Amino acid sequence: VPEAPAPGAAAKPTPLHLQVAPLGLSTGQPTLFLDDGSAAALGVAASDRVRLRRQGAAAWVAAAVAIGHADGPGGLSVELQDKLQAKEGEACLVEAMPRPASLPFIRAKLDGRRLAPAEVEQVMRDLSNGALTTSETALWAAGVHVHGMDLEETVACIRGMVDGGERIRFGPGPVLDVHSIGGVPGNTYAPLTVAIVAAHGLRIPKTSSRAVSSACGTADFMEVLAPVVLSPAQLKAVTERTGGALAWGGGLRLAPADDEIIRVEQPLGIDPVGQLVASVLAKKVAVGATHVLIDLPCGPGAKVRDRPAAEALGAFFRDAAARLGLELECIITVGDRPVGRAIGPVLEAREALHCLEAGDGPAPLVDKACRFAGRLLELGGKAAPGEGMELARATLRDGRAHRKFLAIVAAQGGDPGIRSDTLEPGPHWADAVAPPGGLDLVLPNRALVEIARAAGAPRRRGAGIRFLAEPGSAVAAGEPAFRVHAEHPFHLQQALLAVAAQTRFVVRPP
Amino acid sequence: VPEAPAPGAAAKPTPLHLQVAPLGLSTGQPTLFLDDGSAAALGVAASDRVRLRRQGAAAWVAAAVAIGHADGPGGLSVELQDKLQAKEGEACLVEAMPRPASLPFIRAKLDGRRLAPAEVEQVMRDLSNGALTTSETALWAAGVHVHGMDLEETVACIRGMVDGGERIRFGPGPVLDVHSIGGVPGNTYAPLTVAIVAAHGLRIPKTSSRAVSSACGTADFMEVLAPVVLSPAQLKAVTERTGGALAWGGGLRLAPADDEIIRVEQPLGIDPVGQLVASVLAKKVAVGATHVLIDLPCGPGAKVRDRPAAEALGAFFRDAAARLGLELECIITVGDRPVGRAIGPVLEAREALHCLEAGDGPAPLVDKACRFAGRLLELGGKAAPGEGMELARATLRDGRAHRKFLAIVAAQGGDPGIRSDTLEPGPHWADAVAPPGGLDLVLPNRALVEIARAAGAPRRRGAGIRFLAEPGSAVAAGEPAFRVHAEHPFHLQQALLAVAAQTRFVVRPP
Repeated sequence: VPEAPAPGAAAKPTPLHLQVAPLGLSTGQPTLFLDDGSAAALGVAASDRVRLRRQGAAAWVAAAVAIGHADGPGGLSVELQDKLQAKEGEACLVEAMPRPASLPFIRAKLDGRRLAPAEVEQVMRDLSNGALTTSETALWAAGVHVHGMDLEETVACIRGMVDGGERIRFGPGPVLDVHSIGGVPGNTYAPLTVAIVAAHGLRIPKTSSRAVSSACGTADFMEVLAPVVLSPAQLKAVTERTGGALAWGGGLRLAPADDEIIRVEQPLGIDPVGQLVASVLAKKVAVGATHVLIDLPCGPGAKVRDRPAAEALGAFFRDAAARLGLELECIITVGDRPVGRAIGPVLEAREALHCLEAGDGPAPLVDKACRFAGRLLELGGKAAPGEGMELARATLRDGRAHRKFLAIVAAQGGDPGIRSDTLEPGPHWADAVAPPGGLDLVLPNRALVEIARAAGAPRRRGAGIRFLAEPGSAVAAGEPAFRVHAEHPFHLQQALLAVAAQTRFVVRPP
Repeated sequence: VPEAPAPGAAAKPTPLHLQVAPLGLSTGQPTLFLDDGSAAALGVAASDRVRLRRQGAAAWVAAAVAIGHADGPGGLSVELQDKLQAKEGEACLVEAMPRPASLPFIRAKLDGRRLAPAEVEQVMRDLSNGALTTSETALWAAGVHVHGMDLEETVACIRGMVDGGERIRFGPGPVLDVHSIGGVPGNTYAPLTVAIVAAHGLRIPKTSSRAVSSACGTADFMEVLAPVVLSPAQLKAVTERTGGALAWGGGLRLAPADDEIIRVEQPLGIDPVGQLVASVLAKKVAVGATHVLIDLPCGPGAKVRDRPAAEALGAFFRDAAARLGLELECIITVGDRPVGRAIGPVLEAREALHCLEAGDGPAPLVDKACRFAGRLLELGGKAAPGEGMELARATLRDGRAHRKFLAIVAAQGGDPGIRSDTLEPGPHWADAVAPPGGLDLVLPNRALVEIARAAGAPRRRGAGIRFLAEPGSAVAAGEPAFRVHAEHPFHLQQALLAVAAQTRFVVRPP
């Protein structure tokens, strides 16, 4: 093999030592801005992938390439700087990203092959390291959507997701958690449940999602009350100080592969069972949970349509948890209607906080919160079997849950003096009233979500829906059934068009 | 409906009039760099999609958003400026991209539903307009890969692709074309065929691809001889002047939706039948072809494995062409071995040009070129049925094809004095010789492609393989079978490792 380099010919496209500079420019992904010469030396073109590492650091950080004409240091997008944490002018090692080892496995899944555990773990490792492009990630999600993942693949997926991110380790003793698979608007019970459980000295570091296709996730309304973007160290510290926490799961990078998959599934609203189970359990394992309750809302319009489907999903959850050494129980709940009376960030935050202040609230919401808290108190050894729910109710009623909740808010960096009567929904509103002859207040989840989203939820946090009559009850002609709030007149108009399209109620301007 | 805007509240996130400035920064996609205030006014976040249009222009141009902190004009990436063609400081209208109408159809395809023609056309329209993100495009490709497209869907796909791009219209009379579905290395016949056909006054505006997973596409080696990135107007002008053209199809934006789909399929090497047929025929319709020959290389290691599969694919091509009013014939060719004796841009360019200069060359290559040219001469009315191939051979032999080819090179902006003996492959090389006992020179396509790609093809244009013995013949012990060329010693080393891994031939340094 001839080894002598030809005159003028560069040898292998070797790693470059490149000075870097944060640009304060957000591209939605880690991006490295290179000049033409550096790009040519690395052998990369725009949108190719490279990896960087700081001098002395062991871990590589992946980035997409953008190319400009001017010479200069490598520019770091906000997303890249978040991961790299480099100083202005610092020299980093940069190299072209090797071809990901998992591409053949992604292709095999798309072709319907069952993958070996090591193959699934390799996909998750490449995803966690940022080695896969958006389209490669989408092709993986599509393969799983079409062909599913069996139990063994799902467990491997969870292990791979957890290994690829940070992991919180608490000391001995139970670490509790509760998670809803979603699909029901106004499912506002989590802050109540967490506060009740933590009030008894148990640990419950709850992570929640933001809305994807829904109107408002727990993280969205909780953010009205306190910061929810916590680092793993902060989540651990808040939990150790107060017992409870309510953080945004996507901000923690506990299972970053999961975040990448969710990002590509989002526009089409796909959410295959294996991926759903993997997604939930990976976050639970990563957060250090030992005992987990899963809320499976069930009914027409929910994610799970009927009881047999809910039971099958519950069995899948339990089997996967058993392989991972997690104690897990599923509770099938009512999923065909809202749990609380409010939909949208400010409205849900106000309702949850008001329940905590008053020690009571709408029966479906308070019952659900206390049922879950009660079972967790039993699992945590604070109540005898069958007695947890009463203890939970008492803890809510006598203000202990409220005090604990404000302590959690403070620990997360929020204002412990926050009061529900200071929370103002969007100033533009109109009521929907029953038409001549009257009408039962029964609305499909889908219709409520579309109205709330048309009003601007979850991005406009004051947008949403508040029920003015009891859901399920008969509303007399001309009587108000619900009120729509928006932050902008245009959005209110859009929402009222959705009311007209999705319901038989009639809009009455204020 | 209340209409009065609240104090301080912006109404609808309306379009902005925004001054723009080209940044000379290439991000691999059209990107608009916004300051925080403009992004907030538009209601978009990083990686969201917007659309822009110049004052007075009818067509929108789509872009992904990047967000920086500084105030200032909207920055245009090179890719966005290519489409928008705005002046520094010009005011453009920018608005958030509406949700693409085709998302439910992409989901339906992924779920296995057969789509209506209007639904497929909507997907192609959104793709052509840049309204779909990379992950949405990948999910479409995955759905088609898993569930296929039937004849009606394929025809709708072709119509949608063609409608979404530019289209060349020639005057009356036949416009010929020829296309190989690929999969065979050293398939170097196209320049010969085009030159022969054009030498008889026929029109043949041939578009070709660059290598995706192969070692060298026709556009890759043709680019060694002349510029291949032509605009539709240039392609038309070159064809009208000389009869023939050899352009890169991907540079023409004749069916931009196809280019987007190929981009996401590339890393996994997926290429479903319906999409393959749609891709080929869309470019042919857009280029204005009336008579098309399809080359279906067939055999172990080719894209089509056996004769029944080739016949089925041929029937699909014919049925789709019939619906589109195209005259189309398929020719099944030998696909289990290279056609010419060279693989890689410079080596293939040199071999094709040498055949034209000499009026002859390796039998499989010259026979194939003349067979296709002959049939096209018959279809174009320049030869009686059965007599085209002899006319083609004569046209090659007597130098008419060579003169025509140089005229095409000149019309495309190349050097009409180009000679094959001035084309130099990579300076680093080594031979592969037969081991003790001798060995037949029979190598799977896959092995040849891996060796050539390891040597740097197609990016390093001097990289590749040249056969030193007749493919298929017996090579005596120690006699050379083929030579590997590279531009850099490192790449030669990689290629020689591939020789050792993929063949039983033995490397002998020069």
